[in-house]
Amino acid sequence: MEQKQFDFGLIGLGVMGRNFILNVADNDFKAFGYDLDPEKVSALIEEGGNPERVNASSDLKTFIAALSSPRKIMLLVPAGKIVEQVIENLIPHLDKGDIIIDGGNSFFTDTDRRDTYLQEKGIHFFGSGVSGGAEGARKGPSIMPGGNKEAYEHVRPVFEAVAAKYKGEPCVAYLGPKSAGNYVKMVHNGIEYALMQLTSEIYDLLKKAGNLTNDELHEVYASWNKDRLQSFLVEITSEIFLQKDEFSDGRLVDQILDKAKQKGTGKWTSQNAMDLGIPIPTIDMAVSMREISALKDQRIQADKLYHRPALVAMDKDQLIHQAEQALYFSFIVSYAQGLHQLAEASREYGYELNLAQISKIWRAGCIIRAGLLADIAEAFEADPQLTNLLLSPSFVKQVQDCLPAVRKTVIYAAEFGIPVPGLFSSLSYFDAFTSGRLPLNLIQAQRDHFGSHTYERIDREGIFHTEWGE
Amino acid sequence: MEQKQFDFGLIGLGVMGRNFILNVADNDFKAFGYDLDPEKVSALIEEGGNPERVNASSDLKTFIAALSSPRKIMLLVPAGKIVEQVIENLIPHLDKGDIIIDGGNSFFTDTDRRDTYLQEKGIHFFGSGVSGGAEGARKGPSIMPGGNKEAYEHVRPVFEAVAAKYKGEPCVAYLGPKSAGNYVKMVHNGIEYALMQLTSEIYDLLKKAGNLTNDELHEVYASWNKDRLQSFLVEITSEIFLQKDEFSDGRLVDQILDKAKQKGTGKWTSQNAMDLGIPIPTIDMAVSMREISALKDQRIQADKLYHRPALVAMDKDQLIHQAEQALYFSFIVSYAQGLHQLAEASREYGYELNLAQISKIWRAGCIIRAGLLADIAEAFEADPQLTNLLLSPSFVKQVQDCLPAVRKTVIYAAEFGIPVPGLFSSLSYFDAFTSGRLPLNLIQAQRDHFGSHTYERIDREGIFHTEWGE
Repeated sequence: MEQKQFDFGLIGLGVMGRNFILNVADNDFKAFGYDLDPEKVSALIEEGGNPERVNASSDLKTFIAALSSPRKIMLLVPAGKIVEQVIENLIPHLDKGDIIIDGGNSFFTDTDRRDTYLQEKGIHFFGSGVSGGAEGARKGPSIMPGGNKEAYEHVRPVFEAVAAKYKGEPCVAYLGPKSAGNYVKMVHNGIEYALMQLTSEIYDLLKKAGNLTNDELHEVYASWNKDRLQSFLVEITSEIFLQKDEFSDGRLVDQILDKAKQKGTGKWTSQNAMDLGIPIPTIDMAVSMREISALKDQRIQADKLYHRPALVAMDKDQLIHQAEQALYFSFIVSYAQGLHQLAEASREYGYELNLAQISKIWRAGCIIRAGLLADIAEAFEADPQLTNLLLSPSFVKQVQDCLPAVRKTVIYAAEFGIPVPGLFSSLSYFDAFTSGRLPLNLIQAQRDHFGSHTYERIDREGIFHTEWGE
Repeated sequence: MEQKQFDFGLIGLGVMGRNFILNVADNDFKAFGYDLDPEKVSALIEEGGNPERVNASSDLKTFIAALSSPRKIMLLVPAGKIVEQVIENLIPHLDKGDIIIDGGNSFFTDTDRRDTYLQEKGIHFFGSGVSGGAEGARKGPSIMPGGNKEAYEHVRPVFEAVAAKYKGEPCVAYLGPKSAGNYVKMVHNGIEYALMQLTSEIYDLLKKAGNLTNDELHEVYASWNKDRLQSFLVEITSEIFLQKDEFSDGRLVDQILDKAKQKGTGKWTSQNAMDLGIPIPTIDMAVSMREISALKDQRIQADKLYHRPALVAMDKDQLIHQAEQALYFSFIVSYAQGLHQLAEASREYGYELNLAQISKIWRAGCIIRAGLLADIAEAFEADPQLTNLLLSPSFVKQVQDCLPAVRKTVIYAAEFGIPVPGLFSSLSYFDAFTSGRLPLNLIQAQRDHFGSHTYERIDREGIFHTEWGE
């Protein structure tokens, strides 16, 4: 094997890694993989078909020697200590100017720390979230890189080639310095949590209020996917309802346990939004709902203790029509919250994010891809200072038009005890955000009453305190 | 001045510190204060009236020398670096067995770190939240100490004397090791955020749906405070509506700016609940609402862009009757969420918390004191394994009875766009928590579809993965 002939190195040949490296090779780059597991190594070599084009090894020196300079080494390993270990193992073998790309969901402050550490050694580091699941990695993911701007030029050709394309435009862009890429991917996942929660609530509503069968649910989601709700999550949801169960005559979806797991990125999004002081209650609620779902035993116990109002079914067409608007509205609100968080994170952490560009690279490849994102990208292009989508003139009419249906859906769910917490949160957020005057003057009064925390006034400048009751 | 004659030392003679030390002196302990500001020192001495009983100094050596052994030194200084500095300044002067008590809202992991650090030096450390505001500190607060159990015996006489009394029982108890006290106080504040938010939403609703005047609002809250909603926050709310404005003929509450500030404890509660995996969406929403309130300029802009449905007023008596039930229900849910978090924190951090005891010391003195807490304490006494109040037999009927009114209130608010996010969250939480089956099976299907994250089944054990669409 000729040395230094491979354009791109990849560490971690699990599903994502193997698919990503094959994608790189498909795009006429020579790629070399590394994994401790020799079976994964030989599986990749076999699947690659041509070891001049795709090769791999369990020997780190062989891996390092195979890569052209500056080396571009991507890690697709689980976030956490493993990333640290791999970096430490790599360092003694690397030359100045080499590039390490962390493709996992590392927490953004970990990326900042690693970036500083590696910079001191002359090595470039990219926190670069990859979204699209296994299939995306193979056929074109959305990639969210952050790091050194100049060094990105070495990575760009590979990333632009392998990324998903939206009308020919690659779904990857240099997003900003330091952990900008990981941060954007984290918020992407937060939005993903919200969209998934909302999709599942509407499924529940259609089932309970309209007695829709799985075939009908398939039809509804499939038809929505042809219109303004077109999105990856709506698309796979329509497919899910068709999946037959291997153990019974029914559909698989009905046999799946209703305990939703999580890997932490949604939680991180909510926690960090609170540090930034940005409200993202729909995402928060999606996190809460995964937690509530895990409390299955308590839920079963509680279900027996309380009576729910007897359900009165809705007219099916009206239900579906309302549900579409409720889902569309709450999708918009979810993107609005996540992008608002990014706007503030950009200021706070100096990322200099371009929200139009981020919306664009989310239009294809990633899990939250949706037709809606093209409109969102246009809204941020039209007004780069825009921080909240709800303030964009291009969204006012479509949001306003959805509202009667949103309110009716919430009213129905509240009346009959159907839990649609994501939708409730979205409407709450909207009604609060569009209130020029909120009753939190009372909270300021309470705080000043019991803790002398002072307050401001609406009619004059200054900080005031009152000895209440005197 | 005779040396070593003072029973209790207090550092930080701000409003809270001055009031606390005067409270200590009222209870026949000799107390010595310390503050760098000589004006605060002389103000205290003057207010104390008898320097044999209450004295103070700006000289640390004088302060240290004045205290009997083991020294009990309480800090009432702002949380953060100042606590660290004060501890460092104290250390060289202290003897083994001396006791430092941090009475502020320090973050619980800071307390754990300080506890470990001081233990190595033979000094005992208590993180000991104090609630009740300035008036509580003076006349009897609720105190939440955690730390070394044996050392607490030295502190107990003072704390039990100065604490608020509920039917003769002091509102203080040893809560657990390490940061148990700070943690309990943090969650106390999280609940406080929720109760304040809910109180303000109901105020808004009464004003908008019933056109209640401030005098009528006063009457409503005052009457509620005589019944099952009896609580400090409802009480001060009733007072707030009467407060005259010094700059106009109106009431002060109407002139206060609707931007609610926060100092972080509510945020910490939400963030840590997410780390523990415990859903507390009403508290989360209260945090979000403070954030939304801060976005005043955006809200005013958004208010002009969107139309709200024309409001149809409700029958006043019916409105007030429903609102009372909605508020009572959501108060119960808020306590349920906070106490659930404490149950899990106790397991996770080894606090061995006694939830009945915690409910008891909240019955008087603190900001979230409420008649309801006596019932809550009884529920946890009846079943010490209880983790969620909604599962307590003694709460089922009262919660169930409120629900029709809660649903009507939510429906009215949703129809007319009155933002009651805390109430929405409380009902969402209830409807989800009492659902034996939630639609999150779909989320697990989605996760397995796009990311091979696997799922469980309802009909058989095991972890499953499906190649969807094949």
